[in-house]
Amino acid sequence: MAQPLDAAALDTIFRAARTYNGFTDAPFTQADARAIYDLLKMGPTSANQQPSRFVWCLDQASRETLAACASDSNADKIRKAPAAVVIGMDQEFHEQLPWLFPHTDAKAWFDGDPEGRKLSALRNGSLQGAYLIIAARALGWDVGPMSGFDADKVNAAFFADQPAVKVNFIATLGKGDPSSIFDRGPRPEFDQFNRVA
Amino acid sequence: MAQPLDAAALDTIFRAARTYNGFTDAPFTQADARAIYDLLKMGPTSANQQPSRFVWCLDQASRETLAACASDSNADKIRKAPAAVVIGMDQEFHEQLPWLFPHTDAKAWFDGDPEGRKLSALRNGSLQGAYLIIAARALGWDVGPMSGFDADKVNAAFFADQPAVKVNFIATLGKGDPSSIFDRGPRPEFDQFNRVA
Repeated sequence: MAQPLDAAALDTIFRAARTYNGFTDAPFTQADARAIYDLLKMGPTSANQQPSRFVWCLDQASRETLAACASDSNADKIRKAPAAVVIGMDQEFHEQLPWLFPHTDAKAWFDGDPEGRKLSALRNGSLQGAYLIIAARALGWDVGPMSGFDADKVNAAFFADQPAVKVNFIATLGKGDPSSIFDRGPRPEFDQFNRVA
Repeated sequence: MAQPLDAAALDTIFRAARTYNGFTDAPFTQADARAIYDLLKMGPTSANQQPSRFVWCLDQASRETLAACASDSNADKIRKAPAAVVIGMDQEFHEQLPWLFPHTDAKAWFDGDPEGRKLSALRNGSLQGAYLIIAARALGWDVGPMSGFDADKVNAAFFADQPAVKVNFIATLGKGDPSSIFDRGPRPEFDQFNRVA
């Protein structure tokens, strides 16, 4: 039986974790990206689709390229962060299903259904984006996820060679600078957004 | 500085966790649903949108209703599970932004843009669905997320009074029965779905 997490671990991944706008100088390396991926890939996706495709921007030039695709305030955060990641989604993920989901012909469920693939790539790719955020936090990193960017520019800059891959969202990574965060946004009470049946 | 998780905690939320098809008789109560929600709501969403709306099916009648909307194999899993949850998304989440994101007029970003709201509700609602899965595991529960159901039937059965809320996905909850799982699906190597720039 799995061991529930202790209070400190729950703080690390949910309760004390925050979206950071700025980070310390602590470096983020390819080994860190690999450790995060090795965790996040274990998270469940429908029929093991694993539609996310990640570009880890570890050198300054790649972060300048990404910053040039982002809104003004986000551009500055990306330029100054130790690392950033582009979370893309493969809208032809079904081509990989014969090896990712060998039990049955799941590829056939999506052949000829580009709208269904878009929907499934966004749903399951976003699950994987959340797994990335939690996995990074679990390993002691802080994350700054962002939606404020020009998707066409990001796709042209990072996925020109993979036209079926489209950006979902982007995030900065590093050790959070506590002076860079705002007050936490209000959180709903259970009864506001939940029902029991 | 946040404390990284130890190996046992990483096993609980990612490495040893599995998608269970069947569960033991251990009961899942409203207090458990509230504890999961109190964690998952801390996870970040764009502009604190919090678009997910949850219906926790704790009594057998509600699980029968949900099972009647699901594919044959999923229906059986739902009927036999101690609990299930319908993860809906409010496509008019922007109406809540004045109190959820008081810093600025984020509601105006989405007024008159139903397509943008659908996209954002699916992206951020799926992030919250992943937070639910991880939060449940962190508290010692196992989860069986599912996409195999008739969305129109689920919407009619659970959200008839909230026409802006649409089901995203559903999941069973309980203490997993190890005899109910299949072999784990293959996981990609880093270099298959990642690039470093």
